[in-house]
Amino acid sequence: MAVGIGVAGAGTVGGTVVRRLVEERELVTARTGLELEVRRVAVRDLKRPRPFTVPRGVVTAHVMDLVDDEAVDLVVELMGGLEPAGTLVLAALRAGKPVVTANKELVAARGPELVRAASEGGVSLLFEAAVGGGIPIIRPLTETLAGEPIERVLGIVNGTTNFILTAMTESGGSFADALADAQRRGYAEADPTADVSGADAAAKAAILASLAFGVWVAPDQVHREGIDRIGSEDLASASRLGYTIKLLAVAERTPGGVVARVHPAMVPLAHPLAAIRGATNAIFIEGPSVGELLFAGPGAGGEPTTSAVLGDVIDAARELLAGAQVAPRIRFGPGSVGAFDAVPTRWCLRLDVEDSPGVLAQVAAAFGDAGVSLQSVWQDGRGDRATLLLVTHTAAESAQRAAVSALEALPVVAEVSSAIRVEGE
Amino acid sequence: MAVGIGVAGAGTVGGTVVRRLVEERELVTARTGLELEVRRVAVRDLKRPRPFTVPRGVVTAHVMDLVDDEAVDLVVELMGGLEPAGTLVLAALRAGKPVVTANKELVAARGPELVRAASEGGVSLLFEAAVGGGIPIIRPLTETLAGEPIERVLGIVNGTTNFILTAMTESGGSFADALADAQRRGYAEADPTADVSGADAAAKAAILASLAFGVWVAPDQVHREGIDRIGSEDLASASRLGYTIKLLAVAERTPGGVVARVHPAMVPLAHPLAAIRGATNAIFIEGPSVGELLFAGPGAGGEPTTSAVLGDVIDAARELLAGAQVAPRIRFGPGSVGAFDAVPTRWCLRLDVEDSPGVLAQVAAAFGDAGVSLQSVWQDGRGDRATLLLVTHTAAESAQRAAVSALEALPVVAEVSSAIRVEGE
Repeated sequence: MAVGIGVAGAGTVGGTVVRRLVEERELVTARTGLELEVRRVAVRDLKRPRPFTVPRGVVTAHVMDLVDDEAVDLVVELMGGLEPAGTLVLAALRAGKPVVTANKELVAARGPELVRAASEGGVSLLFEAAVGGGIPIIRPLTETLAGEPIERVLGIVNGTTNFILTAMTESGGSFADALADAQRRGYAEADPTADVSGADAAAKAAILASLAFGVWVAPDQVHREGIDRIGSEDLASASRLGYTIKLLAVAERTPGGVVARVHPAMVPLAHPLAAIRGATNAIFIEGPSVGELLFAGPGAGGEPTTSAVLGDVIDAARELLAGAQVAPRIRFGPGSVGAFDAVPTRWCLRLDVEDSPGVLAQVAAAFGDAGVSLQSVWQDGRGDRATLLLVTHTAAESAQRAAVSALEALPVVAEVSSAIRVEGE
Repeated sequence: MAVGIGVAGAGTVGGTVVRRLVEERELVTARTGLELEVRRVAVRDLKRPRPFTVPRGVVTAHVMDLVDDEAVDLVVELMGGLEPAGTLVLAALRAGKPVVTANKELVAARGPELVRAASEGGVSLLFEAAVGGGIPIIRPLTETLAGEPIERVLGIVNGTTNFILTAMTESGGSFADALADAQRRGYAEADPTADVSGADAAAKAAILASLAFGVWVAPDQVHREGIDRIGSEDLASASRLGYTIKLLAVAERTPGGVVARVHPAMVPLAHPLAAIRGATNAIFIEGPSVGELLFAGPGAGGEPTTSAVLGDVIDAARELLAGAQVAPRIRFGPGSVGAFDAVPTRWCLRLDVEDSPGVLAQVAAAFGDAGVSLQSVWQDGRGDRATLLLVTHTAAESAQRAAVSALEALPVVAEVSSAIRVEGE
């Protein structure tokens, strides 16, 4: 029995998904026994050329046709954005049609509502492609590791910023040059805000945290810092101390609750994440039984993302044919979101200070007063000014910030030119 | 509704699985909504102390009780070995009880028969723990990547041999010393044959090849070479040329069919697999859409393996409660197993030769006659003898072997002391 597929959105990913569903129909049937048939494709602009060939009448401009059309058994949402994607996904789930989506923004913003609708409809909501592009990460997290009390998820989940940071590291150039290069090569969008500000990574961190710990974390509960203030001097300082800089997403279980955060971090050169170049993504999952698991691969792009979407479509179709009510794979239990302030962090600071006797003593005293101790200090005099590079020991995030505020208030400190957390040691 | 679990085997993995099913019952219920209840545990020796506490009457010495007992809904086979595990698994599947197993030997030896029994019983056969210990690899391969025409699977799938090779590389010591060290630390068994000979890795390679390509590959169709002939001189040569030596499992689609092989290989130091130390496993999956995916983590040990088993148990229990006939996730379509002889390989050779004029010309001619060209030659004279280190360009495996045979027949070549393939460039 064939399963009728309705696809919403025929852009980079949507177009590739339809093309491959059509082209690889026989491969899928041979490997899974399923017959997948594209029966409706909702596009925004009916006149735009499309990278796939489907029979006359399959293409529609009306998204809600996918819900109403009885020939559509399963909906694939690849429009992106909150609306009309949200209305479509909720309606489809409530109508008992399983949904596959790559829409991290929607899943992060309305996760519990979507999961509830899937549960009410007795069907699956699958979104493997929402995090890590082609890397299987959602399924391992929700299924293979369902019995593991996960402690931490940490990784590089945004390809654009990793491409920019890699380019800056390897060329020694500025953020603006690296961004322009990424835009030229199609790794960054014309408006790069969502990537550069860390918003895209924060949506993914929210999803990873929610799935790993079974406690819903909303995107605005993720502490977020982007990479737009990272300069070539920061990368030079990092390199001098044996680090490189990566935009990390971290989700962890803390005594105060689940904490998720996205920010640039100094990562030791020997750490596996330091070797993740260009648009690649890499995610570590840590648990008491399983130790450290690493998942890495292409984090974006039409083809890898399509691969994840197809896997979900096959899975959902298989369940649909089994004909039973589907028990939800995802549940959110009791538990709370904790404050980042209490999380232990380490910092690397670059200070522009007066080069005079007693300055280091004043700086050290500011740290001591805030309850932060120093691990290493590196001083470089340049006439009447000096640069101080400091790496702290671990202390509560709030203490580290108090130390920075105290430093900024010191007359001998001209500027705290950079303050970047250290992870992975 | 609770799902009754029957566990066969209470050794390292089985004991840990029962303990964690009992201890983490509430975590599993909170995260998945499932109530998992251990209702029978079949052990070989009723008097041996056990690392778990279950109610009186749960423990039995009769394995087939798991099939006959109506309280058991789902069977977890952790005895290992071909029998009585094979009889138990087949009987359980045919009786309509889903089976979770970590038994790579059984799955590799009787895969198609087991898959057929699962299909007849309308239940799942899951074996995530059979390859890569705690690393989710079976599920990504069979589900997330079900729509991807995978080209190659390559990795380190045996922790014991990787531990030994890492120790030899880092200490410069002999194979025997490293093996003894691995045995002392519990990374190698008293009889290390299955690991050292590559048989364990070959069973895993057979499973990976079969799942990746949908063509059944039996363990005796896997070309297999172990690490027992690797000496400290080989590691020194590797290091001189910028390589390290790893025992690799490779499964690939070739024009002649699917080919799987396990052998030591020179891997460039810059390759991610070169950085995989100790008992860690790491597997690359390569496909035209998805590019290169890397999965890495602890490849063995009771706790990581248990994590994979628990994930499978949760998945099988969820399907069981859905109450439907389960469509098989694994199918074997038409296709053939190809010959290793035709596969393009590259070799690194160490020759002990006479140090006299014309020797290199004779050696080079032997390669040329076999149709193999040389990429690099490194010569080290020691009086009347010299050592030649040669790296070839890619040529058919059969041509490379013909070249080695020709070299062995040359009077000026005292010995081909080592011949190791090069991978990952």
